[in-house]
Amino acid sequence: MAQKPSIPKGTRDFSPAEMARRNYIFDTIRSVFKLYGYQQIETPAMENLSTLMGKYGEEGDKLLFKILNSGNYLAGVDPSLLNEEKFTKLTTQISEKGLRYDLTVPFARFVVQHRNDIQMPFRRFQIQPVWRADRPQKGRYREFYQCDADVVGSDSLVNEVELLQLIDEVFRRLGVRITIKLNNRKVLAGIAELIGAPDKMIDITVAIDKIDKIGIEKVNEELADRGLSAESIAALRPILEIDGTVEQRLAQLESLLATSETGTLGVKELREVVDGTLALGLNAELDLDVSLARGLNYYTGTIIEVKARDFAIGSITGGGRYDNLTGVFGMPGISGVGISFGADRIYDVLNGLDLYPEELRAGSKVMFVNFGGAETLASLKAVKALRAAGISCELYPDAVKMKKQMAYANSSMIPYVAIIGESEAADGTVTLKNMVEGTQETVKLADAIEKLR
Amino acid sequence: MAQKPSIPKGTRDFSPAEMARRNYIFDTIRSVFKLYGYQQIETPAMENLSTLMGKYGEEGDKLLFKILNSGNYLAGVDPSLLNEEKFTKLTTQISEKGLRYDLTVPFARFVVQHRNDIQMPFRRFQIQPVWRADRPQKGRYREFYQCDADVVGSDSLVNEVELLQLIDEVFRRLGVRITIKLNNRKVLAGIAELIGAPDKMIDITVAIDKIDKIGIEKVNEELADRGLSAESIAALRPILEIDGTVEQRLAQLESLLATSETGTLGVKELREVVDGTLALGLNAELDLDVSLARGLNYYTGTIIEVKARDFAIGSITGGGRYDNLTGVFGMPGISGVGISFGADRIYDVLNGLDLYPEELRAGSKVMFVNFGGAETLASLKAVKALRAAGISCELYPDAVKMKKQMAYANSSMIPYVAIIGESEAADGTVTLKNMVEGTQETVKLADAIEKLR
Repeated sequence: MAQKPSIPKGTRDFSPAEMARRNYIFDTIRSVFKLYGYQQIETPAMENLSTLMGKYGEEGDKLLFKILNSGNYLAGVDPSLLNEEKFTKLTTQISEKGLRYDLTVPFARFVVQHRNDIQMPFRRFQIQPVWRADRPQKGRYREFYQCDADVVGSDSLVNEVELLQLIDEVFRRLGVRITIKLNNRKVLAGIAELIGAPDKMIDITVAIDKIDKIGIEKVNEELADRGLSAESIAALRPILEIDGTVEQRLAQLESLLATSETGTLGVKELREVVDGTLALGLNAELDLDVSLARGLNYYTGTIIEVKARDFAIGSITGGGRYDNLTGVFGMPGISGVGISFGADRIYDVLNGLDLYPEELRAGSKVMFVNFGGAETLASLKAVKALRAAGISCELYPDAVKMKKQMAYANSSMIPYVAIIGESEAADGTVTLKNMVEGTQETVKLADAIEKLR
Repeated sequence: MAQKPSIPKGTRDFSPAEMARRNYIFDTIRSVFKLYGYQQIETPAMENLSTLMGKYGEEGDKLLFKILNSGNYLAGVDPSLLNEEKFTKLTTQISEKGLRYDLTVPFARFVVQHRNDIQMPFRRFQIQPVWRADRPQKGRYREFYQCDADVVGSDSLVNEVELLQLIDEVFRRLGVRITIKLNNRKVLAGIAELIGAPDKMIDITVAIDKIDKIGIEKVNEELADRGLSAESIAALRPILEIDGTVEQRLAQLESLLATSETGTLGVKELREVVDGTLALGLNAELDLDVSLARGLNYYTGTIIEVKARDFAIGSITGGGRYDNLTGVFGMPGISGVGISFGADRIYDVLNGLDLYPEELRAGSKVMFVNFGGAETLASLKAVKALRAAGISCELYPDAVKMKKQMAYANSSMIPYVAIIGESEAADGTVTLKNMVEGTQETVKLADAIEKLR
């Protein structure tokens, strides 16, 4: 036999049982997106590399899957580029398309390209796979789904309040207990100002983002390595040690940042989001975390991150506000705020906590046994009647031994087996076996439909 | 302003309105697949090129989108391959993955790879995009969706009968009047035998497949070019001129092919499929078309093709039986039958005939006007109550001029606008404007919910 075929590393096949579980997650997220008035778009898997390159940093450029030009891609290529040392330059000659790396850049491109057809504020959602040539490891794939919702064309913090409600509703429906962490980039800027290192904001935030992982002492070492003075590091400490309720933290932050205009504005924005959220009520735990930085170069206001409370895994949803989504495509001044659900991690959480509803089923509810001849036709007619009533069912296609047919129903986890033999065919009945309880009864077809519906 | 960004040729963005229409098609097909007991799987967008190459003919190999290896793809490449003349050979060195070209080869790969976890007969469906580096033209895209259902591991013609029922139900639900054309590869083999050219079956079928497009005289010219003798061409004519009802055609075919064992078997199979189908009833018109060949190298029994009756476009669904789906991956003897709905063409048909249900809506059912301050919070609470009742709605995020907010609702085709001003907030009411009829009324929030639900 030939070698067993395989798929590229970091990618996955999904079986029917896995699809049922994944669809449960996607359907839940999609329903809530719709309930909140977000409108779905889709963009192509392939984008021009001119759209993608330079948007994710140097590392990101390397992680883009690039598509070889069709036809003779070497025709007309400068021969001096055809050597190992020049491969990066060669790439631009032999590849002009790449697979999308996230949904944000394609969305920005979409907004600019279709600006005349879009009503602002534009609430869009998008649920599609993305691809990254990352080193595959547990929980990290080269193909995975993102589920994004963004509002662009509005500065209002009502959008943040709405998105927190949306996050809360998704995880309430999924039965996952979560903590929503909040921060604001202006608070981070204020902190940098306060400790006398306004030009070091990025260094500070990159370092303090790791505080949960490596602890404050290691963070301080890193800050020193990044050129922060001992005074600055000492001045930072009380801010990192803020604690208490969200309200208490806000108060401490407000007083610590009182001398920074930007910082004060950040605290004011946070307070507005928190107040709005608490006034509407929230199932989730709300947390204020000044060490939260997430893709700082990108966000300009609110920063949001969601952690599962009962399962150890990285952030399962994240987002924030950006002031200039589309500037890079020549359309400045479009502010927006968005969130992204990490469907694959949510899938891991639901699997880990076994949170799926019991009735998730991948296949038929009823299998009809096939006896051949006239009984087959009688069964096909009954199958048609069941389907017309919305009951998912199938006839075993071959008139093989009943034992084999029953074994198929059993291992396919089909909960009911229906039998139309000679006597049932004669009097319009069906014998219905409950595969879970091991019981059976012979009833009129109409009654069987009523029972199964 | 920078150059307006664009997307690769042959690919498309889908706007919210287009998504609503497309989802209507996908949801319809998916529901029927499920009703018929087909189970969903998904496979990765990228497959190893070893899986894809050689499966679609030489032309198909060229149309595969190939992905450049990550990192320094030139490292270790034989330098003698680095020139224009050797690009095909070079490709195998610098690219090991490609985008899937259809859903059939990935399915065959899936069946072999997961053979131990699959219950046969296995009824699977798959709805995913595929990519082909074809020259883009009207109605032909480089990224498009296929919606496939296949049963593997069963020789029974009951599967064909079921699939024809399934096709019938999908188009009944979509409101598209169709003709289902049937043929059988064994009939084609019988014809080749009958006219004394058994080794020319492929030439014959490739030529007669074009009869609808170019007419019988041109077909005969092509047959002569392909080396058919004048006697063979003359002997073929009565077969191509078979007409009458399906039953009459079957009878003529049966008598014409009586001397061919294979041909006779083909007619018997066709008759069994037709009889089963007619016994169960069919909305569609059923047609027997001996010129139908579709991907002949692939099919071994029944051949199915669906045409829209009221809209000029190529086939909108097709399929057939194959005897050796997985042989190429080292697992022989797996017979199956499958169909593929061409979602993009069906989309064109529904657009052309304007067959979408009226209530298709991409966004919110209700927009709340934002007055700022306490009214904003009152509106947010009302929005929350509406959503809890399953009503899709949104608050305009910014407290800008009412005229601007109304214009947004209007151009977003939101059918209701809700107003909670000072007086409404005070007495727990909401003013509801019907944007279609231009009427408005002030009612208790609970009554508004009841009305909108």
